Amino acid sequence: MRKVRVLILAIAAGGLLTQQASHSAPAAEQPENARGPQYDVQGRLVRPQNYREWIYLSSGLGMAYSPNPSAPPAFTNVFVEPGAYRAFTATGRWPDKTMFVLEERAAASKGSINKGGHFQTDLRGIAAAVKDENHFPEKWAYFNFGLRAESAPANPKEACWQCHNQHGAVDNTFVQFYPTLKPIAMKFGTYKPRE
Amino acid sequence: MRKVRVLILAIAAGGLLTQQASHSAPAAEQPENARGPQYDVQGRLVRPQNYREWIYLSSGLGMAYSPNPSAPPAFTNVFVEPGAYRAFTATGRWPDKTMFVLEERAAASKGSINKGGHFQTDLRGIAAAVKDENHFPEKWAYFNFGLRAESAPANPKEACWQCHNQHGAVDNTFVQFYPTLKPIAMKFGTYKPRE
Repeated sequence: MRKVRVLILAIAAGGLLTQQASHSAPAAEQPENARGPQYDVQGRLVRPQNYREWIYLSSGLGMAYSPNPSAPPAFTNVFVEPGAYRAFTATGRWPDKTMFVLEERAAASKGSINKGGHFQTDLRGIAAAVKDENHFPEKWAYFNFGLRAESAPANPKEACWQCHNQHGAVDNTFVQFYPTLKPIAMKFGTYKPRE
Repeated sequence: MRKVRVLILAIAAGGLLTQQASHSAPAAEQPENARGPQYDVQGRLVRPQNYREWIYLSSGLGMAYSPNPSAPPAFTNVFVEPGAYRAFTATGRWPDKTMFVLEERAAASKGSINKGGHFQTDLRGIAAAVKDENHFPEKWAYFNFGLRAESAPANPKEACWQCHNQHGAVDNTFVQFYPTLKPIAMKFGTYKPRE
């Protein structure tokens, strides 16, 4: 249970969020990816539309904080907005306006020529993490969109933030599970080994 | 066994290939992704350097054509060059110079706060598929680079091409396993249900 399962359950439950990360020029002149997190009039994060074209970080299957999870194993795919990715590769740090999306997909074993193992099928929902120092007192906030929500409020601090803060290897993020980012953070001295 | 396992074994065995897909303007003026497949003086495909910044299509864990595969299950991640992806989303077809990379990574279960399921760790090798109508008589060719090969020759037709041609849902590609591309191909009428 804990963390990953909490996040996955939260995704399954409903939720929303986001857009893309960035900074200065007016939104209309930038591609969607470069506009940074977008909020609606209630301050809810707007659901990201094109995160499948962001930078892929890694996938898990059935990741859980308990050795005996109760739900059937699903795939989780993690994407980060390209501008934040480029900043991370150059500095080992996440800039303000960084956005992540965690996508959950069902796992199938039998289909077409595949007879063993697991492949990905239907979307189960998405969640997002956003670093926005002006917007959130704790800098990072977490959002669940499920399958269809067009926007989502930030989750309570104890739902996601606390675990990310306590266990994330780099600035509230689980770089310990992103094999291409881990050596970059180690090179820049920003990697904290975490249990 | 068969297909996926053959590919994975081939990745593990060694191999090489590629760069990125595209077409007209001189390479020096284009980002690496837009240069199309690159070949060395022996006509071997040059290993792609930045495929992790291409478009992610899907992942599997231990996918196999046999219900009893012999190797320990590994993750496989599939990426496609962004220009080819954009063409596919607009037409449901792969343009000439399309390039795919299949990346294999080890799977771990225990690490940091994760106690169940599987997450990705070390790179095991990469393979590539290239559509290059002027270069290959069968249009598509397949290459294995393993961990370090800087270039690779095309595999024999019976190693990869035959199965891709017989079982790929869209033009030698396994779109049946890429959940975001399948509805696009169906919309454009290019999807052939395949066993």
